[in-house]
Amino acid sequence: MNLKAEIVSVGTELLLGQVIDTNTVEISQSLAELGIGCYFHTSVGDNPLRLSAVLSQALVRSNVVIITGGLGPTEDDLTKEVLAAVTGRPLVLDPAAREHVESYFRSLGREMSQNNLRQAMLPQGAEMLPNPRGTAPGVYLHAHGAHVFCLPGVPTEMRTMWKESVAPRLVRIREGGGVIRSKTLRFYGIGEAALEERVKDLLHGNNPTLAPYASVGEARLRITARAESEEAAVSLIAPLQQEILRRVGEYLYGEDDDSLESVVGRLLQEKGMRIATAESCTGGLIAHRITNVPGSSAYFGQGWIVYSNEAKVRELGVSPETLERFGAVSEEVAQEMAQGALQRSGAEIALAVTGIAGPTGGTPAKPVGTVCFAVATAQGSQTVTRSFRGNREDIKWRSASEALNLARLALIS
Amino acid sequence: MNLKAEIVSVGTELLLGQVIDTNTVEISQSLAELGIGCYFHTSVGDNPLRLSAVLSQALVRSNVVIITGGLGPTEDDLTKEVLAAVTGRPLVLDPAAREHVESYFRSLGREMSQNNLRQAMLPQGAEMLPNPRGTAPGVYLHAHGAHVFCLPGVPTEMRTMWKESVAPRLVRIREGGGVIRSKTLRFYGIGEAALEERVKDLLHGNNPTLAPYASVGEARLRITARAESEEAAVSLIAPLQQEILRRVGEYLYGEDDDSLESVVGRLLQEKGMRIATAESCTGGLIAHRITNVPGSSAYFGQGWIVYSNEAKVRELGVSPETLERFGAVSEEVAQEMAQGALQRSGAEIALAVTGIAGPTGGTPAKPVGTVCFAVATAQGSQTVTRSFRGNREDIKWRSASEALNLARLALIS
Repeated sequence: MNLKAEIVSVGTELLLGQVIDTNTVEISQSLAELGIGCYFHTSVGDNPLRLSAVLSQALVRSNVVIITGGLGPTEDDLTKEVLAAVTGRPLVLDPAAREHVESYFRSLGREMSQNNLRQAMLPQGAEMLPNPRGTAPGVYLHAHGAHVFCLPGVPTEMRTMWKESVAPRLVRIREGGGVIRSKTLRFYGIGEAALEERVKDLLHGNNPTLAPYASVGEARLRITARAESEEAAVSLIAPLQQEILRRVGEYLYGEDDDSLESVVGRLLQEKGMRIATAESCTGGLIAHRITNVPGSSAYFGQGWIVYSNEAKVRELGVSPETLERFGAVSEEVAQEMAQGALQRSGAEIALAVTGIAGPTGGTPAKPVGTVCFAVATAQGSQTVTRSFRGNREDIKWRSASEALNLARLALIS
Repeated sequence: MNLKAEIVSVGTELLLGQVIDTNTVEISQSLAELGIGCYFHTSVGDNPLRLSAVLSQALVRSNVVIITGGLGPTEDDLTKEVLAAVTGRPLVLDPAAREHVESYFRSLGREMSQNNLRQAMLPQGAEMLPNPRGTAPGVYLHAHGAHVFCLPGVPTEMRTMWKESVAPRLVRIREGGGVIRSKTLRFYGIGEAALEERVKDLLHGNNPTLAPYASVGEARLRITARAESEEAAVSLIAPLQQEILRRVGEYLYGEDDDSLESVVGRLLQEKGMRIATAESCTGGLIAHRITNVPGSSAYFGQGWIVYSNEAKVRELGVSPETLERFGAVSEEVAQEMAQGALQRSGAEIALAVTGIAGPTGGTPAKPVGTVCFAVATAQGSQTVTRSFRGNREDIKWRSASEALNLARLALIS
């Protein structure tokens, strides 16, 4: 059957922002992998009236309702009581659930409080879902045409029960197979709006679907296909991907979990080359991003942060005349920084960045956001100047991305 | 007036679990501090029908509706269209919003695509909320007795607009002249649970309120007071702050927007000292954090990333014998790195870090997360070894925080 799922997380701590609702994120990812569409997330506090409103609405509009939280032994754990009320069923003591709770306390050698017996009460007709990691049993109830699952809010307990009890049952409920597969295409050097205009006519497909996303300094397109099998989904994705690349392939730098730094790292390893960095305005961010990639020590041996002119001269041999004549923020200085880093490190490629990250230090000729780049190899060096917008951290991030992309282009040219 | 708030986050990527909805968490925390009750969180996809259902319901049951996401230039950004439809207002081109979008592109020197003009359309009667960090203007609309705020989904943009436009307006709407003041106390070296344990009895106050927060490598306590005047609010905060410091003051490193790097920077400027960094496993993160502070060029001239042993020897004069005898991850090597950086940079204090960030490279004697630190000044150097948990990026972050805190302690001793 065609399943329409939604997730309800219960707990006032969520509404106070004291807890990040990772349960909902994990369940959403798993639903997507199972090929089950999820259409709403709702968080509501430990309040019977509002919880009733949310659960009644969920039972009406969805046929799979996943509820996390509110199964504990305390007075403000209301999920089962409210579920029983809105489905018009009494709460009854479930023998299996009682045995589960009692054996849990026996195994801990701890006294069981009367409160804990509340955890063995289920809405009539419901089925207990065992909780291998804690006291609170879960609940499965089929009511008003909806499959309702109640799970504890404790992530480790929820995760185990989701894997062992809920996910397999959902697959059984959804007759036949079905998978959702996504492929993310990552672009650098084209804005979200410009990218979207180039593929506008492809955005209205139903299967596969195409959706644009953006974050600082990059734009993404995600292709998502639903099919009966992995293979079928992949073959739905391929032709759309080819058409996209035909139009904007020049801006593509990677796929899925790639980052500019991981792509640069892969290219360096393929070519057996090492990279060195000479950073002024990025202040170490480029090296930080390069070394976020596990195994980067194979191709990154060292880098310099030369913030002051003195350091540029002393460490990288930038000539005082060049600094005097062109200024620290110039392609000439960037080039000497890159060549100095190349020679002193013994690496095969070197990146240099010098610019004005702001908020102060700009001039009419070189406003905040003006950044000069150089890439040096044994074959020589190229330089470029860009101007970026944003606050200090945005400009550092965009400058580091630009530098990594210049390295990528040099490595594939 | 008594405000009932709810938060609606828009974006199919949320329902697929591809993005964690940090916006809703941050807004919830701020609402809690403002003393405004938040009763529902809802996430809904980029689907006009379901978004209409969610927004209509929100307008009926809440009088403050915060919407994040769906303000971008692309066709699946529907928030304003749907808000206009459910409130029965046409979308009209707003001159202020148009100027905002156009000036943004002018400042970038980039072509504005026709799509971007969509971002200047607002529901009739709505007011633009300026977005200092991006193209998409926000929206404030008072309709059907509800105060509706639309903010971009990009966290940096949302955060700035929330602080500058939304929070102050909500206070005006609710307090009619009253003020709310918060003070955040920032602690390093004590875990969230331990900190909470030490102040547990203080967490149940009503005015001022006290709330614990934590992020990787630090714990925070936020005191929030409501009063008729600034002075009255401040005098409510003071005694609680004194009691907290009496109990855990030894771990306090800063307040409010302080960071370890900004506190270190302030101390360096007070003492007229400069700092240099010598980084192995942190790979540039310490320098990156130091240079995130505006004006850091006054006290940070240069740093080294010496990932390979060769670079440690060549750039910082670490002796091959020390590397051979104690290994790269040792206090002895950290000490020579720090002394080398101190001498070569001419700075008055130098930090060095060498360790194993993982995921590979650990040994039984020195498992992943083992990190050695040194702080060197003209008076000599101190070293320490710590072991951290977490993934590669966590270990880099915790190591950088520890190094910055060691610098802070050296500067105040």
